[in-house]
This record gives sequence, structure tokens and C-alpha cells, in this order.
Amino acid sequence: MKKILIASTALISTAGLATAEVALSGRAEMGVYQYNAAFGGPNNGNIQFFQDIDVTFTMSGETDNGLTFGASVDLDEADGSGSFAAGNTLGASGATGNNSDDGGATIFISGSFGTVTMGDTDGALDWALTEAGNVGNPGSLADDETTHAGYLGAYLDGGNDGQILRWDYTSGAFGVAVSVEDDNGSKAVNVDPGYAVGFKYALDLSGTTVNFGLGYQKAAGAIAAGQTDQSSATGVSVSANFANGLSAGVTYTDMSDNANDKHVGLGLGYTTGAISVHANYGKFTGEGANPDTKGYGLAAAYDLGGGAVVHLGYGSSKVTGGPTAKSMSVGLGLSF
Amino acid sequence: MKKILIASTALISTAGLATAEVALSGRAEMGVYQYNAAFGGPNNGNIQFFQDIDVTFTMSGETDNGLTFGASVDLDEADGSGSFAAGNTLGASGATGNNSDDGGATIFISGSFGTVTMGDTDGALDWALTEAGNVGNPGSLADDETTHAGYLGAYLDGGNDGQILRWDYTSGAFGVAVSVEDDNGSKAVNVDPGYAVGFKYALDLSGTTVNFGLGYQKAAGAIAAGQTDQSSATGVSVSANFANGLSAGVTYTDMSDNANDKHVGLGLGYTTGAISVHANYGKFTGEGANPDTKGYGLAAAYDLGGGAVVHLGYGSSKVTGGPTAKSMSVGLGLSF
Amino acid sequence: MKKILIASTALISTAGLATAEVALSGRAEMGVYQYNAAFGGPNNGNIQFFQDIDVTFTMSGETDNGLTFGASVDLDEADGSGSFAAGNTLGASGATGNNSDDGGATIFISGSFGTVTMGDTDGALDWALTEAGNVGNPGSLADDETTHAGYLGAYLDGGNDGQILRWDYTSGAFGVAVSVEDDNGSKAVNVDPGYAVGFKYALDLSGTTVNFGLGYQKAAGAIAAGQTDQSSATGVSVSANFANGLSAGVTYTDMSDNANDKHVGLGLGYTTGAISVHANYGKFTGEGANPDTKGYGLAAAYDLGGGAVVHLGYGSSKVTGGPTAKSMSVGLGLSF
Repeated sequence: MKKILIASTALISTAGLATAEVALSGRAEMGVYQYNAAFGGPNNGNIQFFQDIDVTFTMSGETDNGLTFGASVDLDEADGSGSFAAGNTLGASGATGNNSDDGGATIFISGSFGTVTMGDTDGALDWALTEAGNVGNPGSLADDETTHAGYLGAYLDGGNDGQILRWDYTSGAFGVAVSVEDDNGSKAVNVDPGYAVGFKYALDLSGTTVNFGLGYQKAAGAIAAGQTDQSSATGVSVSANFANGLSAGVTYTDMSDNANDKHVGLGLGYTTGAISVHANYGKFTGEGANPDTKGYGLAAAYDLGGGAVVHLGYGSSKVTGGPTAKSMSVGLGLSF
Repeated sequence: MKKILIASTALISTAGLATAEVALSGRAEMGVYQYNAAFGGPNNGNIQFFQDIDVTFTMSGETDNGLTFGASVDLDEADGSGSFAAGNTLGASGATGNNSDDGGATIFISGSFGTVTMGDTDGALDWALTEAGNVGNPGSLADDETTHAGYLGAYLDGGNDGQILRWDYTSGAFGVAVSVEDDNGSKAVNVDPGYAVGFKYALDLSGTTVNFGLGYQKAAGAIAAGQTDQSSATGVSVSANFANGLSAGVTYTDMSDNANDKHVGLGLGYTTGAISVHANYGKFTGEGANPDTKGYGLAAAYDLGGGAVVHLGYGSSKVTGGPTAKSMSVGLGLSF
Repeated sequence: MKKILIASTALISTAGLATAEVALSGRAEMGVYQYNAAFGGPNNGNIQFFQDIDVTFTMSGETDNGLTFGASVDLDEADGSGSFAAGNTLGASGATGNNSDDGGATIFISGSFGTVTMGDTDGALDWALTEAGNVGNPGSLADDETTHAGYLGAYLDGGNDGQILRWDYTSGAFGVAVSVEDDNGSKAVNVDPGYAVGFKYALDLSGTTVNFGLGYQKAAGAIAAGQTDQSSATGVSVSANFANGLSAGVTYTDMSDNANDKHVGLGLGYTTGAISVHANYGKFTGEGANPDTKGYGLAAAYDLGGGAVVHLGYGSSKVTGGPTAKSMSVGLGLSF
């Protein structure tokens, strides 16, 4: 429901020219949220106000021979992020001040060869798979339903700094992608770039679309303590959007050289009129002596139209032997 | 190849649709300023360059059943603010990076029930009263006239983090508001949310409008040292805008559980053609052994049209027994 | 007086009104870069991803009597920059949060008297001279060609905080400017504002334009260790743009009270169709026992049209007796 501030479609169509431009969209959220001590965070306790706002700058253009290109950066990505140590220079964000990090921004160029994207984008495994939270999920203010400890959303992306270069190509129902996450040119032993490959296939069964995803990924960065190689993962997903508003999906991910042996995720969604509901469940099976971790998430929404939606979110997590972490949020999500 | 972002009012009116959008406005100030050692600050001494700039993103939309909603955030609110300690994460601002703080942003939804606003907005007492600096004040570059030590502008707002949820309703000449400032869900003893209630009445005397304001507020946050309860305040204001360009106002605020016993403020403004002048005076009477604090501010402006205004500001403050703090600024204020 | 960005060129032209507005433009860069250990930086080693993005807000307006005014600030200038010490307040940037610093923003007002600019702008010497990197240079992603150690780009601007107030006036082929960089009102002994004066002359030889620049500058801020006065510089430049696409330029700068005695810079550029190439060389001759420093830079570009350009940059630097520092970048520069 993002309405961009468009630059006079009438004027452009009259002139008939491709033109580079910057469009604005916005998002604001207000409500209340609460989470318990096991969930962590500075304000665990009673219910409190929830408020967030952001502006997105979306840039687009076209070369003389018809390649399209574009980029995207958010207002919050102008800001330094992460933890400050005395004397460091993290004030300028990675998006605008650090050329070796994406800082949340993405840039792409697209043509008959496919699309090449650099930045804070999905690696090829994540690109190919439809994870549980992407199955008919209307979202929530605090993302409770996709931040529980049993949720797997980014696979092995982010082994180094999460800056990814991906090529993807779609032809009819079939799609393929290859991606690299760099290691910032490191010469250190056992620090390497990561890579991934993914495949998609969309099967149309007269009104019901069934999406298949398959991929493999090797993580970027250093080898984790106690492992002999960078983590790797092979994943598969199947999801379906039924004509009656129901959607369902399952993912299975097998991991190596990782504290987890495998992950299973399930997602369900249903939309009828202005109402959407979603639930997902996920479980990591620990490798060897590592504990299992599981959790579930719920999201419900009522669309008021015009970009305003009432949201409710809930998440619950449990590491075997530990306490149950819980979080919830309710309020208005406003898209502009 | 710089293309400006134009918005096609024509297109929108033709389509006849309510559409969510993000609008841009800007403000730039250049001039000189000076302040003495008693005023404080890092560069007290000789006259120096003054320069400030900001961009505001104003979002607006409408639901299908006619509720209007919107939000506002400034470019400087994308930035972390406040004081940095080693290891903390204040880089991401409260507006975009901290869901429990407004960081300067506001969000509202409005309908026949009135308007509900969350964020960096006035509490109900501040909403109801017309403080001395809001009486015909054209403003200044360094806000000298409203930052002197005798000035009371925000009443007890900001006892915790200044994030306020306010409902207000206006019917004809009468207005009412109720507000809450939360305590971030704190479970600590003696840390509580604050609240306020306020009433407005506008009396139209054939060309002269007389505005009455009345309200009560209990501060959010912790009980101050040496007090037995959160501070509270009862305030009243009367102000008038005369047909000849003169405006005048007075406020009286009685405080409890506070280092100050009461505050009186007086404001005067006069506008003729392109010229505006303003003066205000304020005095805090200390509770018990606490000293009195008083000050005055002056502002003058000449409007060049098109958004450009020449500004002059002056402020003077004195705590009983202490030195006089002085500040002044002069230059151009540009609105876009 | 906040004017929102509505705009619709059609609406403005119909109404025939000058209107204050805020325009957006953007820039995104993606590619790879590499630099050696002698160049410095955190990621010297193998080749790595390069990515940068920025948004510029350009404000413009006009007073009732025809003075034009404007201002500019970038998204990255919303951010705090520089080095953080525990407890300081650098989170809010100089552009938006520190009134005594420009933080990268500029503000101007212009009329028949010329143009007065405040902020992150060229001092009068830099304004008058055409430095080597401004001779037919298409630029590069990492600015390799203008960041080598033999490059002189800003002359003595930035002796204090780089905030400059400049008046310039152009009449036909002749231009003159005077500038001041302030010392933030310092009362310290031997800390003073700096100033500069510059002259330009453009000679048109039937298709070939020859630009002459001449200026003098005294640096702002403190006297450097081992010197008896603030640094000063006298510079001259001659550059020419030939009708066949070739451009060439030379600068000579004589310095006093400085670790360098003099600087010579040479620049060459050539553009044919979509292709542009540029080379420059610069050398600082050390004063007394100070070593000489020299370097060269190369830039090449291929314009894809619509704002997309393929860039290649290279820089090489050497301080007498030290290692050779090298950097290069290649990729896409996208302007929106």
C-alpha cells in the first residue's frame, strides 16, 4: 500500500521521455507493546507506547539502450548504527559513509541479462525459498511473529557484513539466482566470501499457485568456533496460494558446520475482505549437544483502506531447558 | 540530470481520489550569534557564524470511511541525539531506531471522535495554554527569546522521555484534551506515567479574539530528590489578538512537589505590514530556600516575502545571586 | 510559513508565481575497489565491493523584490560525523544539530549585489582557481584520482571547521570573490578567522575558452607547530577548454608558514562521444627539511545515458623516502 509521490505522470507521458527520478514513500506506526524478561530488551515489564516512523527514497532511471536501474535507501539508514566505542567513527552510516558496507541500501541494474543487485538484499537461497513468515503474513508493529527464536528468515546471509551481490533471471515460471557476500577484501586465513545458488518454479494449477524453491549456501566470514569450515545450508520450500484466500507453506533446511543440524518451518495465512490472519511455527534441531530452539508467531490485521491497517502481533520462543520468551504488539500501521 | 520531485496536483484532482502521500518542506537559517560565559555553551566569546538547516517529511492519508491520518518527521530526527557513552547504541535515533521513544516524530489519526496524537507533541496543559512566547512572536535564529531561564514553555512535559499520547476535541469555540506521558513500562517503585487535562475557550469580541486556557498536569517519571510525589502543575492563560495587530497574553502556573513554587509569564506582540516585534518576561518563584529565576526575551522580524525573513533575537536571564546570562542572534530565516 | 512540495510544473506556470520549494536528487554507486597497505584504511588487501548512496535536498525561493535564495543539504549530512568520545554529543550532525558548524550544508542569497553563500563552500582562492581535478574529469567511484597525496584541492580552506562565508560577483568575463572562515568566536591567543580573495577571467578565443584564476588566502584557526603565523597561500591557475573536446590546466601555489613551500598541479581531459578520460599530476615541495610529496590520478568513464555512467579511477602517491600508495575503483555511477 505504499503510495509513492509521483512526478506528474501526465507530464512524463506527454514528453515521452525516460527520466531519472527520486520518489518518496513513508511508514508510521503507533500503538502499544509489551515483552517479558526472558525476551530481553531494556523496557521489559508493563505495557508501553510503541512508535516508529521511516521514509524511503526510491530512485529509478533508464539508460539510452533500455537498461533500467535504481536504488533505495531509508531515512533511518542515513544514521550511524551499531554500538559506539569511544574514538570510533560510526556516526556516518554504512549506507552513506562507509563504501565497503551497504548500510541497508540496495542498488540494481536490469536488462535482458536479468537483474544484478548489490546491497542489503537476499542471497540466492533466501531469494529462492518462501519462508514461513512470507506466507500470507500481514505483518505487525514489532514484528513479533517473525522475531521469535524458532524463526529462520535470512538463512546464512550476514556471515560477514550482509552486503550481497546477486544476479537473478526469471523466464516464465522458472527463476534462477547466484549470489556472493564478500569478506571486505580480507587477507586473513579462514575468512572468505560466501556464495549461494537458488532456483524457483511456480506451478499454476487453475487458480492455485504452487511455488517451489531450492537452494544451497556457503556462509561468508570466519569459521565459527568449534567448526572446521564456514557453515553451509541446503534448503527447500513449497508454498501455495489458494483461490479462496488461504495460503500455506513449509520449509526444510539442512545445515552443516553449524550449531544447528536442521530447521523446519510452517506458515499459514488467510485473507477474507479486510481481515488477514497468519500463524507460523519453526524449530531448530541442535547439532550434537546444542539445545533445540522452537517458537511460534501470530499476526492479524484489519485493513481500514487508504494505507491504514490495524495490526496485532504475538511471538513465543523457547530454548530447551530455558524460560519462554513472549512479546506482543497492537496498533495502527500507516503507509504513505 | 537532476530531476526535481514534482507531484502533479492536477492528476490527483482529476482522479478525485484520496491518496496517501509524503510532502517535503525545508528551513534554512544563516547569520551570526553571540552569547556570554554565563549563558554557557562551547563557543562563548566573540560573535560567530550561525547556520542551521532542516527538512520535514509530512505524511498524510485517509481511510476508506473518512478518518484522516498523518505523521511528521524531520531530517535531523533521523539522527541519533543526546550524549554518547562508550558501548551504547544511540546512533540510531528514537524516531527511526527506538520503538519505545518518539525521537521527535508525531503520528495522528483524526475523525468525528477528535484527534489522537502520539509522539513529540504537547501534553494537554501545554496544548490548552498560550504561553508568553506564542504571543505574536515571529521567532529568531537561536530562539534567544524563548530559551532564557525565566521562560516556561513545556510545563511538566518530558518528565520521562517526552513521548505523549493526547486526545483532543474541538467544538466551536470550546476545546478539551487529555494526555498521558508513559514511563516506558517501568516496574520501578515511584516511577509512573504522567497525565494532563486541558480546556480552551475562544471568545470573539467583534474583531478581537480572547483565548482562555486552563489545565492540570502530573509529571511522568521518577519523584525528584527531596520531594514526596511527582511534580504537578495547575495553569491558566489569557491572551488576546487585537484587530490593530497587537497581541498580549499572561500565564500563571502553580506548582507542587517542585523546586519552584509558581511561574508568571507575560507576552506582547505587534505586527504592522512586514514588521513584527515581540517581548516576553517570565519569573519562577523558588519553593522554600530555592532561588528565584527570571528573564526576558525580545524578537523582531522583517518579512521579505516568499519565505525569507530577517530575524533579530535577544535573551537575558538571571538566577537570584548569580550572573546575568545573555544571548543574541541576527540573520536570515528561509522557509521552503 | 512552511511551504510543502506540491508542485506540478503546470500549476506553477499557470499561476505564474515564484514559490519556495524543496527538490530531490539522488546518487548511487556500485562496483569494486582495492587499495594497498601504504594507502591505509581498514580493508586494505584484496578487491572488495564498493557501494555508496546519497540523496540531496535542494531548496529554492525568491523574495517579493526578486532576491533569490536557496540551500542544500544531503541525507548523509543529517548524520553525526567525526570521531566520538564518550559523553559527547556528536550524534546530531553539524548541519542540523550544531548551529556553529555547517555540517556540509550551504545556504545562499543572490541579487544584483552578487551572491552571498554560507557553509561548506569554496573559499575565494579555491573559487577562483581551476584545480587539476576540475579539468575534464568525469569522476570515479572512490575519487581515486583526486585523493592521492600530491593533490591540492581545497587550498587552505578548513583551517578551523571549514564553515565559510563568501561573497562573489560576476560581470561578463570577470569575477571576484572575498571569503571569511570564522574561528567560532574564539578568544584564544593566536586563533583567528581566515580570509581569502580571488579573481577570475574567462578569455574566449573563437571556440576555445581560456580561464585565468588568481587569489590569496590566509588560513583560519591556530598557528601550526613550528610556525610563527597562520599559513598563507598565493595561487594562480590557467586552464583551457578546446573545441575538439580536449581540456588542459596548470596551477601554481606558493605557501608561507606551512610545512610545504609550493605546489604545482597539471590536469588533462578529453571527451569524445560517450567516452571521457582524465589525468592529473601534482607535487608538493617541502619547506626546509620537510619531504616532497607527489602523485598522479587517472579517471575514465563511459556514459550509458539517462544518468548511468561506467567509471574507472586510479591514484598513486609517494612521499619521498616512503612506499607508493595505490588505489583503484571501477563500477557504475547512477545519478537520479
